[in-house]
Amino acid sequence: MKQKKFILPEREIPTQWYNIQADMPTKPMPILDPKTHKVLKPEDLYPIFAEECSKQELDQTRAWIDIPDEVLEKYLVYRCTPLVRAYGLEKALDTPAHIYFKNESVSPLGSHKLNTALAQAYYCKKQGITNITTETGAGQWGCALAYSANVFGLESAVYMVKISFEQKPYRRSIMNVYGATVTASPSMSTRAGKDIITKDPTYQGSLGAAISEAIELALTTPNCKYTLGSVLNHVCLHQTIIGLEAEKQMEMAGEYPDIVIGCFGGGSNFSGITFPFMRHNLLDGKKTRFIAAEPSACPKLTRGKFEYDFADEAGYTPLLPMYTLGHTFKPANIHAGGLRYHGAGVVISQLMKDGLVEAQSFGQLDTFDAGVLFARSEGIIPAPESCHAIASAVKEALRCKEEGTRKTILFNLSGHGLVDMVAYDQYFAGDLTNYAVSDVEIQKYIGSADALNVNL
Amino acid sequence: MKQKKFILPEREIPTQWYNIQADMPTKPMPILDPKTHKVLKPEDLYPIFAEECSKQELDQTRAWIDIPDEVLEKYLVYRCTPLVRAYGLEKALDTPAHIYFKNESVSPLGSHKLNTALAQAYYCKKQGITNITTETGAGQWGCALAYSANVFGLESAVYMVKISFEQKPYRRSIMNVYGATVTASPSMSTRAGKDIITKDPTYQGSLGAAISEAIELALTTPNCKYTLGSVLNHVCLHQTIIGLEAEKQMEMAGEYPDIVIGCFGGGSNFSGITFPFMRHNLLDGKKTRFIAAEPSACPKLTRGKFEYDFADEAGYTPLLPMYTLGHTFKPANIHAGGLRYHGAGVVISQLMKDGLVEAQSFGQLDTFDAGVLFARSEGIIPAPESCHAIASAVKEALRCKEEGTRKTILFNLSGHGLVDMVAYDQYFAGDLTNYAVSDVEIQKYIGSADALNVNL
Repeated sequence: MKQKKFILPEREIPTQWYNIQADMPTKPMPILDPKTHKVLKPEDLYPIFAEECSKQELDQTRAWIDIPDEVLEKYLVYRCTPLVRAYGLEKALDTPAHIYFKNESVSPLGSHKLNTALAQAYYCKKQGITNITTETGAGQWGCALAYSANVFGLESAVYMVKISFEQKPYRRSIMNVYGATVTASPSMSTRAGKDIITKDPTYQGSLGAAISEAIELALTTPNCKYTLGSVLNHVCLHQTIIGLEAEKQMEMAGEYPDIVIGCFGGGSNFSGITFPFMRHNLLDGKKTRFIAAEPSACPKLTRGKFEYDFADEAGYTPLLPMYTLGHTFKPANIHAGGLRYHGAGVVISQLMKDGLVEAQSFGQLDTFDAGVLFARSEGIIPAPESCHAIASAVKEALRCKEEGTRKTILFNLSGHGLVDMVAYDQYFAGDLTNYAVSDVEIQKYIGSADALNVNL
Repeated sequence: MKQKKFILPEREIPTQWYNIQADMPTKPMPILDPKTHKVLKPEDLYPIFAEECSKQELDQTRAWIDIPDEVLEKYLVYRCTPLVRAYGLEKALDTPAHIYFKNESVSPLGSHKLNTALAQAYYCKKQGITNITTETGAGQWGCALAYSANVFGLESAVYMVKISFEQKPYRRSIMNVYGATVTASPSMSTRAGKDIITKDPTYQGSLGAAISEAIELALTTPNCKYTLGSVLNHVCLHQTIIGLEAEKQMEMAGEYPDIVIGCFGGGSNFSGITFPFMRHNLLDGKKTRFIAAEPSACPKLTRGKFEYDFADEAGYTPLLPMYTLGHTFKPANIHAGGLRYHGAGVVISQLMKDGLVEAQSFGQLDTFDAGVLFARSEGIIPAPESCHAIASAVKEALRCKEEGTRKTILFNLSGHGLVDMVAYDQYFAGDLTNYAVSDVEIQKYIGSADALNVNL
């Protein structure tokens, strides 16, 4: 019988993360203070983030960073995650391509988010922090943070966008199981929240508002730090465990990928699966293609602009050099909530600029077509976000068929969709379309931070 | 670092199921035709079940039955499932016991049900059957069957209890993803359904009614067979893959269990984890204890009676010699829907009668206490059913602490609870109690099939 799954023994799970910044031909541009436009140093980030995370964020020299034993130990609850040969999908597509996927959906919360949540919580704990906070939209990241805070004995407070708090009680309940305090945002517990509610008592909340509340809590509470689920360099760093495992697992399978694919929101799962393989493009002359699969409703890489912009809607964060649709861009309410973000992480943006990353965009209906095909041929119901990676893998596999070439394709299955079934309901009811944002809409928000006059 | 998870390489996954009937000191009593009370032979079951399943059901001689290659291949999507050392739970309980759990929640649908659904669907396919049908309450079993029908290219029709169909749309959506036709029961598509609706148009359905509809469909549709998710011997047989893997994995961990625990509904996951170890009690003089953990709201093993009874509420099935609360017993609406069944499988009932199986019952509140402790110490949110096995493991581990003994405890985590969060919501809201059914209530239904005058 042909081997279907490849899993590393625990002793072979990587013990270091890979920091691609050290190997980049063009280093990322600096991040800037939003008021003074001065270049920020790690110390400048300490009030908000754990010190170790702040250092990792700006570290352009160390290629390998040790995973603390305490984090590794917690990784073992679900890692190594399986690398799976998608024989079923290959057959359904009748393609000569070999398709593999890394199955991050087997984690206790069903997605890759724990890889960095555990690390961030640990670094806070190590530094003597007692409370951590964050924001969450649909709740995937909030669950991972609640879980990780519980693991390391920290108190956690999660600001959850009010409309999700009310419409998606499941993920709120999951956070409760792990002991988190979950507050609907905007709330009366912060200045920022009060201001918003005063202006509009019926406001249903936004990620931008929730970020503002969480940052305010971190800044005004003793021993409290803020954590983030994507975009930032240290978050992407922690996710490289995905690709580092996959590299060894592909070796077990006796193959090396020609194409590596991840869905793209802020960039964390994409970085995780691609950076370890990209290293061999940078250093060993490999020619692997790396494809970021984004929604056509939020096409920052395919149609955005590279410029300095804020990471949050309200404009409180440092200024980041990124591909962006503008920090006030309002993406349509697609089911892939994790991909509804205006910008791309700093490192990926630079790699994209340097031609190391390709991007493809997909309409929502097309991604669910691919997701249902995958569920029926491989058994796992994918998260709406992951459906984008699958859509790209399908596209490339069909191209192989057309051209008669036998490529090896690897994609990251970032999560399962068991808590997102309402999206599939709408798919089967025929309620989804391939909506793409218009040029006019995109032009409206790009350049919204360009009063900076930074020359790019 | 101490090893946390033990996983067999694919080549070491067992290739046979274990049929404990062959090794039982007292063979199970025969199953009887409901009308004539004649002893049933495999042929008598062919109109309803696949022929191979019918033979396995009554096979008291072959201890080992080959798993077909086609089924093994599909098992590889999620098997081998991890055996996990519960260091976190041990620490939380401060117990000298070593606690292990077999994690069946990593299957694509989050529970052990696929182990038999794949086998039953395959045997139907092999025999040239084109359509399969079943009933489902909350939907866990219906999802597994829909998945398996899709895998082997069969049409599937699932009758889902109407109140669940309306209140639990998630599992219905999952079945839709795999292409199943899902009908709220009672429906107008069968004689049985029509009769019920005619009497009471507002009736919200029951498992008994749904079974009747599914059996009627199987009997009246060309090339269609009925499948079942628990209770029957062939179902328990297919689940032994769980314990057979666990046996090898415990060997990897260098231990052998003193106590093996499973939650108990009809008996399938319990049989799966225990039978392979029970074999060594029967043949090699091992003294392992086997504990069936059932809800105090449905205590067939701890407070039921051993007698011939029907497997379904309506009384259409063969008569089975079983521990039962009476086939018309109406269990309270606890969240552990999979444990709300009046009887125990034939083989387990005999083993229980012979003193090889112990039973414990737990109140709903106590099981969620244990489940939340487990989630916080091991990370995984357990299904309400699995919370019963955890409650028993906790009880035994605390006994070890009290007595200062170092026992090795193994339990089966039959599924995760990510699609059952409403139960946790009610737990945190303080809405759950330790309801136990009264003696008066139990006496009402026991003996409901005793017009048989079968001497037990």
